Amino acid sequence: MPKLWNDTIEEHRRAVRDAVLDATAALAAEHGPRAVTMSRIATESGIGRATLYKYFPDVDAVLTAWHERQVTAHLRLLTELRHRPGGTAADRLAAVLDAYAGIQRRRAAHGAEPSALLHRGEHVDHAHRHLTALVRDLLTEAVAEGDVRSDVPPAELAAYCLHATGAAADVHSQAAVRRLVTVTLDALRPGPPGDSP
Amino acid sequence: MPKLWNDTIEEHRRAVRDAVLDATAALAAEHGPRAVTMSRIATESGIGRATLYKYFPDVDAVLTAWHERQVTAHLRLLTELRHRPGGTAADRLAAVLDAYAGIQRRRAAHGAEPSALLHRGEHVDHAHRHLTALVRDLLTEAVAEGDVRSDVPPAELAAYCLHATGAAADVHSQAAVRRLVTVTLDALRPGPPGDSP
Repeated sequence: MPKLWNDTIEEHRRAVRDAVLDATAALAAEHGPRAVTMSRIATESGIGRATLYKYFPDVDAVLTAWHERQVTAHLRLLTELRHRPGGTAADRLAAVLDAYAGIQRRRAAHGAEPSALLHRGEHVDHAHRHLTALVRDLLTEAVAEGDVRSDVPPAELAAYCLHATGAAADVHSQAAVRRLVTVTLDALRPGPPGDSP
Repeated sequence: MPKLWNDTIEEHRRAVRDAVLDATAALAAEHGPRAVTMSRIATESGIGRATLYKYFPDVDAVLTAWHERQVTAHLRLLTELRHRPGGTAADRLAAVLDAYAGIQRRRAAHGAEPSALLHRGEHVDHAHRHLTALVRDLLTEAVAEGDVRSDVPPAELAAYCLHATGAAADVHSQAAVRRLVTVTLDALRPGPPGDSP
């Protein structure tokens, strides 16, 4: 069944866009995001400069789109982990924080953090709010299941969890990231019965 | 006893500089740091524009100096708390983290965070390294005193503590800051004997 013309056009556009962003990711990983230029993107992606400029006005626009794609992919992964069936809410929380810490570590380790070059875009703020709400909801479930302390509002615990696991950017091994997540989760344990204020 | 001429000059310079930075702080607190201009600083501080420009070439230089002064003052306070006599290392750690969380909250609450406008300067990196070492050393003492878990290296716990209490920027009351510090410290408790890996 032949595709509608518009669908084909749209698919082509997405393919070009993805090729540009993949080339940008490769260049940034190899040389750092500051070394990314429109010429290098054109060469690396095999897309002509004239075409490239039809898609993105300048390198900042490419870096912003690349960053947006990364943030969206991370959020999709974390959302999937949050809804994975089976296990307790505390298990799913551990999986989400583990993945989040790994993302923070990889971002820092690559030294290829484009957000340092960019103004924090609306999409980053949006993603951060979304993620905070996701973690808060998991914590609320885990409190109801008796696995997380009930003496601190889940919204505050969510801020704590995301900041604490953000320390993964400052540690130097995958084992250290695992220890960090363990330490972060240890603070969430409910106290002994009658211990809450 | 008359002061040496050089001392007097130096004192005068420091007084002018402090007046400029105080004026900058007042303007930034009232209107946000983006609204700070050289003209407004001159008016607010009562220092002539010509004199002001002898001290600082532009408003970025003033904001950087202001930020540097803030960071230095914070570090001095935290260092004093770290060395305060009496109590255990764990007590001093709690005092340091409590003060640090308060600083993070006030910075966020004022919405007058100049660092968002500035490139992270060398002095900020230096202060951060200094603070991390300070917290790490306190943690090492507290581990030796048996008040903090020994299964995670103190350097990693220091990164955890500073990131976790940094969540104070995202909470909305002084009570929430206190809860955050409590939660952060709870993760540091040593496990029951024989529980460590």
